[in-house]
Amino acid sequence: MKKACILLAEGFEEVEAVTPIDYLRRAGIEVRVLGLGGRTIGGSHGITIMADAALEEIAAATTYDAVIVPGGMPGAAHLAESQEVVALIRRHFAAGGIIAAICAAPAVVLHGACGILAGKRFTGFPGTEGQVKGGVPVNQNVVVDGNLITSKGAGTAGEFAIAIIKALLGREAAEAIAERVLLRL
Amino acid sequence: MKKACILLAEGFEEVEAVTPIDYLRRAGIEVRVLGLGGRTIGGSHGITIMADAALEEIAAATTYDAVIVPGGMPGAAHLAESQEVVALIRRHFAAGGIIAAICAAPAVVLHGACGILAGKRFTGFPGTEGQVKGGVPVNQNVVVDGNLITSKGAGTAGEFAIAIIKALLGREAAEAIAERVLLRL
Repeated sequence: MKKACILLAEGFEEVEAVTPIDYLRRAGIEVRVLGLGGRTIGGSHGITIMADAALEEIAAATTYDAVIVPGGMPGAAHLAESQEVVALIRRHFAAGGIIAAICAAPAVVLHGACGILAGKRFTGFPGTEGQVKGGVPVNQNVVVDGNLITSKGAGTAGEFAIAIIKALLGREAAEAIAERVLLRL
Repeated sequence: MKKACILLAEGFEEVEAVTPIDYLRRAGIEVRVLGLGGRTIGGSHGITIMADAALEEIAAATTYDAVIVPGGMPGAAHLAESQEVVALIRRHFAAGGIIAAICAAPAVVLHGACGILAGKRFTGFPGTEGQVKGGVPVNQNVVVDGNLITSKGAGTAGEFAIAIIKALLGREAAEAIAERVLLRL
């Protein structure tokens, strides 16, 4: 069974977090929801979600097939400030694991904190691309470059989730979930 | 300020609940998340969300501009079994308030429990339309008939949320949120 984790910090964007968790679990992928600083995490639109575990407790000890980073502010900024988050993402990126980030997260977390977007094709929330020195912005809802998957924002979270499923389980599994949830690709 | 409530019961579909809460709040609509039987409610894909209040505590006393009913099973079935939920929906429907339901909820809750779809154009999760005797199924992602708004499933939750915003605040406000979240309509 493929394993993914998603990193939530106070102020995460709720649709960008919940959509990948939901669709990946529908595809049979084990998704661990890791909360920065605890298990009860409030989103940027006042929705509080229970994480499966505190990130600090288990992040260093476990390896996942994919690490997912939602946007939302100040959620993405909090993730960027966390040494555990930066170490987790860098370790998985270096090992060839899927790193998937959406909205503010590509610029703020993958570039600003982790420095892994240089020379890479990517997208993000419109206006954030300019912060990514050395990256190659691409104007698509979802951009895949090797093991990096990036996407624009809440309204593209469904396509983002389907792209992660495709990277982990292949095209057929991804299309089956898109059809099941009635998502137009 | 416009006020909406969304009804969550154990086994609700997470994307169908979180997307309207998120997008309506972005539009400045006050959204109360009401949990059936308590404040900690688990979704059908293992995501636990904190409601703002237990439905039983406040539903009878308050009037909203819109009542939103997500799908997911057994969430929709639990809502259908609740006398408080049925009374809340019927009271708002009779008063001309917006009733918005998605996925299993049109057939299971609005029709099966509340009996308010007779003669109405509606949609729902494919295959559920046949349960709605006397209703007029329409094969669109979102169907608006008077104060009734219905939609198909998780992948159409963004369009569903935008349609609710349009009904409450008008086309311009709705299109502004769709553009802000990068949702293709």
